[in-house]
Amino acid sequence: MSRRYVIIGGDAAGMSAASQIRRLDPDATIDVFERDNVVSYAQCGLPYYIGGLVPSAERLVARTKQEFEEKYNIRVHLRHEATAVDPTAKIVAVTDFATGDTRTVPYDKLLIATGARPILPGWEGRDLAGVFPLKTLGDAERILADLRDRPVERVVIIGGGYIGLEMAEAFHLLGKTVTVLDLAPQLALTFDADMADLARDALERHGIAVGLGEEVRRLEGEGGRVRAVVTNKNTYPADLVLVAVGVVPNSELAREAGAELGPKGAIRVNDRMETSLPDVYAAGDCATQFHRIKGADDFVPLGTHANKQGRVAGTNMTGGDARFAGIVGSAIMKVLDIAMGRTGLSSREAEALGVPFETVRIRSRAHARYYPDNAELHVKLLFRRDDRRLLGGQIVGKAGVDKRVDVLATALYHGMTIDELEALDLSYAPPFNAVWDPLQQAATVAKKADRRAER
Amino acid sequence: MSRRYVIIGGDAAGMSAASQIRRLDPDATIDVFERDNVVSYAQCGLPYYIGGLVPSAERLVARTKQEFEEKYNIRVHLRHEATAVDPTAKIVAVTDFATGDTRTVPYDKLLIATGARPILPGWEGRDLAGVFPLKTLGDAERILADLRDRPVERVVIIGGGYIGLEMAEAFHLLGKTVTVLDLAPQLALTFDADMADLARDALERHGIAVGLGEEVRRLEGEGGRVRAVVTNKNTYPADLVLVAVGVVPNSELAREAGAELGPKGAIRVNDRMETSLPDVYAAGDCATQFHRIKGADDFVPLGTHANKQGRVAGTNMTGGDARFAGIVGSAIMKVLDIAMGRTGLSSREAEALGVPFETVRIRSRAHARYYPDNAELHVKLLFRRDDRRLLGGQIVGKAGVDKRVDVLATALYHGMTIDELEALDLSYAPPFNAVWDPLQQAATVAKKADRRAER
Repeated sequence: MSRRYVIIGGDAAGMSAASQIRRLDPDATIDVFERDNVVSYAQCGLPYYIGGLVPSAERLVARTKQEFEEKYNIRVHLRHEATAVDPTAKIVAVTDFATGDTRTVPYDKLLIATGARPILPGWEGRDLAGVFPLKTLGDAERILADLRDRPVERVVIIGGGYIGLEMAEAFHLLGKTVTVLDLAPQLALTFDADMADLARDALERHGIAVGLGEEVRRLEGEGGRVRAVVTNKNTYPADLVLVAVGVVPNSELAREAGAELGPKGAIRVNDRMETSLPDVYAAGDCATQFHRIKGADDFVPLGTHANKQGRVAGTNMTGGDARFAGIVGSAIMKVLDIAMGRTGLSSREAEALGVPFETVRIRSRAHARYYPDNAELHVKLLFRRDDRRLLGGQIVGKAGVDKRVDVLATALYHGMTIDELEALDLSYAPPFNAVWDPLQQAATVAKKADRRAER
Repeated sequence: MSRRYVIIGGDAAGMSAASQIRRLDPDATIDVFERDNVVSYAQCGLPYYIGGLVPSAERLVARTKQEFEEKYNIRVHLRHEATAVDPTAKIVAVTDFATGDTRTVPYDKLLIATGARPILPGWEGRDLAGVFPLKTLGDAERILADLRDRPVERVVIIGGGYIGLEMAEAFHLLGKTVTVLDLAPQLALTFDADMADLARDALERHGIAVGLGEEVRRLEGEGGRVRAVVTNKNTYPADLVLVAVGVVPNSELAREAGAELGPKGAIRVNDRMETSLPDVYAAGDCATQFHRIKGADDFVPLGTHANKQGRVAGTNMTGGDARFAGIVGSAIMKVLDIAMGRTGLSSREAEALGVPFETVRIRSRAHARYYPDNAELHVKLLFRRDDRRLLGGQIVGKAGVDKRVDVLATALYHGMTIDELEALDLSYAPPFNAVWDPLQQAATVAKKADRRAER
């Protein structure tokens, strides 16, 4: 008899696993249960869909339910929610939203890929019309419908992280008057404050207001619709409010089945994506990720990790042996005319880890100083004081940011020192770089700072 | 008494060394002898100066003779040629072009940084007016003067390597009718033929003619000026001819002093930039570079290596201990609307090395498929069949080429496998990448190809 695979959640991790299972186990029975009415779409593309750069939702869908069913013989059950897992009986209880019926589905191998959901704090007024999170395609469609149906002029974004800043750009592109509020004294908390200030500069340069240290007290409405955001400091008129203060893993199902949880309540997995329950795997935004630089499990819900973990899970579920190599903390975002990238540890993370470290920061250029359109590039490196190993880096500028982040990410993977970074044979021609890459310029400064510290 | 440092050659390697010596030995006496009338300028910028993208030669000069003298107390002797080195007496014979006088200069430590010179084959007609090499700023000025003074419409470039292709772009930008001829059956011999074909496509798309397998027989002239290039196949009318068929190291001075030579006649140096002669160092385009992937000395005259080797030489000349980590073979060039980058070994080099290897080639996209302006990206990877280590890569496309070359260069530095490449935590957001970077997509294909080969 063919093996029965059940996958709960049909986005990046779930569908990567399903595809991998099909590849490795052609006879398998594969059932995917997805609460939403769409599978396998690019969540990271939602800000660009809302901002009008992506003309249709269809363009965000990598493969449709029909393609999965017809081409890959993967059964996709939309609008179905898994409500309970019995790891002893090896069954999942599933409710069909259309009929309200619940049935049990047996599995040989189960993958929990339930993702994460946006945090919506318990503010008064949070249920007013015009207040939105952004996590799913449905959220995006609701925001777009609201923009179409109502006169929206002033948008307030609560939360200055990745989604908040990408959406600030999107609303700005749509001609809205945008304000970004954050509780913290800086935007983009995964960056050091001095680098995050460059995001603030970019927003303000484009006429987007930024409020920091803003504690939201309540949302005010009129006729059931949001009208203002009231903070400890001010009242911000708002026709639309986006709440983007982070996500939490959808780990309840796994927890109730007895699975061990890890950081931030995410489902603890090992490098084979196995949970603490036999034959139950987890992957993606609901699961933990091993952080190579921290040497510990972390919770960093990103599409790249979800795809990798899904593929690893799928391989192992069929009896293979794949290992998730872990993350180094790479991330990037576009904020209007600048890009902000980071990898490894921020100063905050390095402090929390208690390792002795130094930082250097330089201002350089994306390519040869004499070649046209030469954009400024800000580079910050963190490295260990004891063994000079790189700990992390942050890069901000108008061009060439992604390149330097990815070089650093590759260097971090193998624990390179600042000396090795300086010695790299990176490609050079005037349109692409300086003879010494800005990363190497920063490494040179780091070496000098290190020598000074030794004295 | 302060130590006496003599440096022969005042470009990238020489002036990097001089600066480093000044930093580490503040009391040193530093004399630089430079045959030309300028020091420390960006040779790699010459095609962009000729093409008009860099408005003046001054912009190419990193630091002037005056700056070196006044700020760094480095004595720069322009238009001086070193004609002999006596490593036993530790003296250099130097001729002043202005006076014709020759004197001897004693040294404690000597650096030979004499660079390379363009090959000018012994074709009949090679001395005709309108026939130019391009290596120095003087060459560039002569080409620009010729373009100003004469009606130049048809330009023939002999040699389709880096300089030849960058100059094809430059002359095209100036509105000239350009033909590129190469003896080989492909352009850009450091690339595999299938990837080099993309350069040919780019040239032809812009109306630049390409002739391959073209053996130059002679240059024809009229009134002392070049009129045509005659090959085994055809006669190409030409108002100006650029000869760009490679360079040879200026190693005669070192050889005559008894220094050991290496590949292509370059001065053999160890990782401290020491030649076989005591207290005599060499660096840059006249010296060898240790190739990490080949595990052997090579001759790859590039500005990046010259800068690194110069700095290493300078450190060691003052009694420090710096090591040149070696090269991995990274290079990149812009050819009109595409970039062509490579690192590690080409198929030709891997074959010559005799290692068992596979290649994979994919066509992908520079960023998320749904995000606007999504350029095609061609990726070719080479990896060892025995231990799956990366051997090299070639990337061609309109955007995102430099990033992938540099990630590969970093991966190659530590001998990553294709599995590790696939596992890298590279930064992702739709404007910058796909969820799986094209390099990782290629690694996935490579893994499958490898599995098939195992069966």
